[in-house]
Amino acid sequence: MSDGIAPVDLRSDTLTRPTEAMRAAMAGAEVGDDVYGEDPTVRLLEERVAGLLGHEAALFTPTGSMANVLAVAALVAPGQEVLCEASAHIARAELGAHGAVMGVTMRTWIHERGGVDLPVLERLIAPDMGPFFVRTAAISLENTHNFAGGTVLPLATMRDVRELATGRGVAVHLDGARLWNAHVATGTPLHEYGACADTIGICLSKGLGAPVGSLVVGSADVIEEARVRRKRLGGGMRQIGILAAAGLHAIDHHVERLADDHEHARLLAEAMGTDPASVDTNIVVAHHADAPGYVARAREAGVLVSAVGPTAVRAVTHLDVTRADAERAARVLTAC
Amino acid sequence: MSDGIAPVDLRSDTLTRPTEAMRAAMAGAEVGDDVYGEDPTVRLLEERVAGLLGHEAALFTPTGSMANVLAVAALVAPGQEVLCEASAHIARAELGAHGAVMGVTMRTWIHERGGVDLPVLERLIAPDMGPFFVRTAAISLENTHNFAGGTVLPLATMRDVRELATGRGVAVHLDGARLWNAHVATGTPLHEYGACADTIGICLSKGLGAPVGSLVVGSADVIEEARVRRKRLGGGMRQIGILAAAGLHAIDHHVERLADDHEHARLLAEAMGTDPASVDTNIVVAHHADAPGYVARAREAGVLVSAVGPTAVRAVTHLDVTRADAERAARVLTAC
Amino acid sequence: MSDGIAPVDLRSDTLTRPTEAMRAAMAGAEVGDDVYGEDPTVRLLEERVAGLLGHEAALFTPTGSMANVLAVAALVAPGQEVLCEASAHIARAELGAHGAVMGVTMRTWIHERGGVDLPVLERLIAPDMGPFFVRTAAISLENTHNFAGGTVLPLATMRDVRELATGRGVAVHLDGARLWNAHVATGTPLHEYGACADTIGICLSKGLGAPVGSLVVGSADVIEEARVRRKRLGGGMRQIGILAAAGLHAIDHHVERLADDHEHARLLAEAMGTDPASVDTNIVVAHHADAPGYVARAREAGVLVSAVGPTAVRAVTHLDVTRADAERAARVLTAC
Amino acid sequence: MSDGIAPVDLRSDTLTRPTEAMRAAMAGAEVGDDVYGEDPTVRLLEERVAGLLGHEAALFTPTGSMANVLAVAALVAPGQEVLCEASAHIARAELGAHGAVMGVTMRTWIHERGGVDLPVLERLIAPDMGPFFVRTAAISLENTHNFAGGTVLPLATMRDVRELATGRGVAVHLDGARLWNAHVATGTPLHEYGACADTIGICLSKGLGAPVGSLVVGSADVIEEARVRRKRLGGGMRQIGILAAAGLHAIDHHVERLADDHEHARLLAEAMGTDPASVDTNIVVAHHADAPGYVARAREAGVLVSAVGPTAVRAVTHLDVTRADAERAARVLTAC
Repeated sequence: MSDGIAPVDLRSDTLTRPTEAMRAAMAGAEVGDDVYGEDPTVRLLEERVAGLLGHEAALFTPTGSMANVLAVAALVAPGQEVLCEASAHIARAELGAHGAVMGVTMRTWIHERGGVDLPVLERLIAPDMGPFFVRTAAISLENTHNFAGGTVLPLATMRDVRELATGRGVAVHLDGARLWNAHVATGTPLHEYGACADTIGICLSKGLGAPVGSLVVGSADVIEEARVRRKRLGGGMRQIGILAAAGLHAIDHHVERLADDHEHARLLAEAMGTDPASVDTNIVVAHHADAPGYVARAREAGVLVSAVGPTAVRAVTHLDVTRADAERAARVLTAC
Repeated sequence: MSDGIAPVDLRSDTLTRPTEAMRAAMAGAEVGDDVYGEDPTVRLLEERVAGLLGHEAALFTPTGSMANVLAVAALVAPGQEVLCEASAHIARAELGAHGAVMGVTMRTWIHERGGVDLPVLERLIAPDMGPFFVRTAAISLENTHNFAGGTVLPLATMRDVRELATGRGVAVHLDGARLWNAHVATGTPLHEYGACADTIGICLSKGLGAPVGSLVVGSADVIEEARVRRKRLGGGMRQIGILAAAGLHAIDHHVERLADDHEHARLLAEAMGTDPASVDTNIVVAHHADAPGYVARAREAGVLVSAVGPTAVRAVTHLDVTRADAERAARVLTAC
Repeated sequence: MSDGIAPVDLRSDTLTRPTEAMRAAMAGAEVGDDVYGEDPTVRLLEERVAGLLGHEAALFTPTGSMANVLAVAALVAPGQEVLCEASAHIARAELGAHGAVMGVTMRTWIHERGGVDLPVLERLIAPDMGPFFVRTAAISLENTHNFAGGTVLPLATMRDVRELATGRGVAVHLDGARLWNAHVATGTPLHEYGACADTIGICLSKGLGAPVGSLVVGSADVIEEARVRRKRLGGGMRQIGILAAAGLHAIDHHVERLADDHEHARLLAEAMGTDPASVDTNIVVAHHADAPGYVARAREAGVLVSAVGPTAVRAVTHLDVTRADAERAARVLTAC
Repeated sequence: MSDGIAPVDLRSDTLTRPTEAMRAAMAGAEVGDDVYGEDPTVRLLEERVAGLLGHEAALFTPTGSMANVLAVAALVAPGQEVLCEASAHIARAELGAHGAVMGVTMRTWIHERGGVDLPVLERLIAPDMGPFFVRTAAISLENTHNFAGGTVLPLATMRDVRELATGRGVAVHLDGARLWNAHVATGTPLHEYGACADTIGICLSKGLGAPVGSLVVGSADVIEEARVRRKRLGGGMRQIGILAAAGLHAIDHHVERLADDHEHARLLAEAMGTDPASVDTNIVVAHHADAPGYVARAREAGVLVSAVGPTAVRAVTHLDVTRADAERAARVLTAC
């Protein structure tokens, strides 16, 4: 590592540490036992996020994975299927929970940027082939799409999918772990995204910089059911107003600044040999012949990035990466 | 229905009724309690089918679905994934059992003829991304492929998949419910197909005309484990030498004659407006503007076919369809 | 083994081989594809058994285990519980399928004769403790009780349980794998037992001597749902009229004769040092200091019995054990 | 509610709010991304708790339920069974997760004080009945036992169970959500309890007063596996040093004071008409003809207790109940 200076850590936007102001908000939070429904700060957060997305209700969850699992389980019964893109977080990074824990089955389509090719989706969707065939019960979209490189799924595409799905009696889930980034990158109000889905998962602990927490959002019925299932999964925590206070603080103070992360990402893209125009938000994926070697050289020079495949390197900007950090990283990565 | 003559039933090759000779074989079968491992006829059948496929052991199952579920569960732990084509029987027609019963998760690729595009598969396969990612544990192939229209998966392709999989530490399952048809259509010995897979499911009750039964085939260890899981699923039956005798009879008498079914299918293809050259085995899928209407007209004229989509009609030839039946059906279908 | 004479096999009543008359009935059975609902013999059997138990509908299953799994799953949702006696077949001999396959949880009470102590059951039953507690959804009774030694559960007790359960909104399942034995031993009509339960599992392949098959019995809705789940478990077989014909034959010819099995069992009880008055039906459990040694000595002398614990020996009478066989076995066992 | 004074809340010890000192510890905690294994405060806590119990490793979990689920799943494969007392938390209050999520099956014994009658346990335990029977893989003990009224399970009993289990190749899990209370009530060092079990679940958010968190404790292998399963359940949180700091503070400052809670509980017992000698720790269960009426009268007079059955009332003392509160509550409850 170079010279005792702290490295610029671009491995993930989950790495952010709470700011002093956020810590103060947490320390002063009013709390109660949320299993009894008595934590006022959690209730505030849940109402606020439900409102932002234009839905009836929301539920705090320990992680984005649990939010997705609860949402999909609310839409898809055991033995039914959810359709998603083949590199979706729910397919790749939730350890098979949808099948292993909830008994949901999955089919996938492949799309370079994590998006949707409507005719392909039309071909897959099969909600009504009789009792002895798997019923398509939901389609899951991801916006922004993590493993495709923080790509934004256009609102128009989401609306098309919603229309197709509704016409066939199929529900839509939105994995919006980084929906805040899509919102800031495009200016689309959150509730317009929310209108395209029956359930949404949204995270506080990625770009927003809260230490812990996500929410699942949907109708009052879905959320009531999710509350019971959350307890079954071991996610029914107690005085979590502490954590919810960080989330409320983040919504107040850390949303608009995501534009800085996006600008820093484009700056890094250039340094990494990727077209900045292909970088929609805060994630850069660049291709190099020897990804692990590249990562090692960068680490040596004080910049932490990840190999996400034999020839793919990923850098993610976030709250703890300043303009100066990004510029330093860009200089280092240009030379790697 | 026309004139009191029995209709030609082309809905499925599962519809066959046991012949007199097969019934006699069943009636005279030596039996024992197979849960105690004491049914000699079942043991004969299991050894014979294992031998044909060049594997150590086999296990009788009530259905092809159970054979597939037991095989995949032997290769893929809960939370791991199996990759398959998006219209595979294991994805579409087993009611989500792989997820709902075994906790296995699934990703799919799309291929017009139920086959494999190797670069696409290379892109999907991901056995080694660390403990927090889903591990690809198996690839499942289907030969012949039911919903793609009885298509044969070429041996060369199977070998390529096997090589790719083995190189990455991934297992291969072969859903060979209709592998007999592929064998007869291509002349490829069954054991050459068997050499491309760790486990195989193979059916007696489709083209071969037995009333009940399939087998899962693999190593002795896999089969021992499958025997326990078969009992957990409620598939541990008693004096099934009765059923195994039908299977042995079918292997002796009903394999070579599948060539007739294939010829009848090409004859029907022409009548249904499909290129006979596209018909590999005993299944014809034809496209018509109004599939349900077509099916109804055919039924009226004494021929039973199925709508397998709004514009897709399927006809399947089998043991109970004679040359004369096929010709009668062809005349009827030409006019529909 | 003694003198080349075939041993008397008292290990289980699942060991029976079909009689010549039963084989003839099977060989001549009218069949169809039962997945399409087109097997007339299966339909006859299902209607007949439903009628005998006074319920709307029934469904053929490959095994008694699958009948129980489908029935309990129809009554108990994932995460809810079924209560049963601690040595019940559903708890001990179905390989944990209720939990592993259906996600049902279980609590048990202990009763020497596999019966019910009502105050204990009242203490366990808990259907209404709010959304964060496990809901008791069903009680499962077993009649006769296999591992308690073929004991009959009195109709009066079943009625008491039914009344308690109904009053608390809890369903009742009856594992009646050997309900025929209880019926013959007590003279209680099957429909009176049937009136005490929402679902019943009943077997053809134990005392009745059919080679394969059980039925799950209940309301039309329950059976429709069970039919779908049967396919998910891989139990949706094709031309099973062959097997159903054996069941119909057995119901016509092998029910009343169970009285002989019961008489033979009492004869054996005396020989094994067990009070014949404690033997309700066709199963004898005797206690000996060294059960495996006893079993080995009996085998040496041409009688097969089982050790069902370090000091417990079990003998089961059935269709293939004649009066002469029973007398021979009694002489042998007296000397063991 | 009486006179504007805050009620004395005796509904549960999960209701405690973090003290000012605890909030300060949380606000100042050093944190990192725990999914990457980089949170130093969590690591400190995990090492500390593992050390206290004399085991190799520990893992922070969002809840005690998740700790229990991960521990039991590490010891018991799908289809195997865990034995526990019929009112155990794992049987009653975890929403059937052991079956519904992990596929584990369960049998139970009944014991008035949540304890163990060794001959009964010996009768249930069945690890070795062959491949077609459910294998007993673990016994779960609970100390103190919540629903039996905070009863202590004597160390001698735990040792007897451990010896029986080990002799039969069966593992032991200890649900020690309130093991701190047992430790303080008896003076038994935690590691002596720890020596009786392969895995332990232990909570920070009950008597210890932390807002969130439990730990599962065991061998390094068990914990590594639990870490992966924690992520599958959606429990892999990020900067949880915030929460771990509360736990460390609680271990430093809130263990010895549990003796006060126990004294307050005995004081309440007398007021509620229960023998104080029957109150081992901080939970009082009293029997009254009309539990809901009793609860309502108490609430009216400013004391919150729970009905835990039609005739059972429960009061729980904790960190937020002072001596004066307990005395006030005792006066109120005496009159109810």
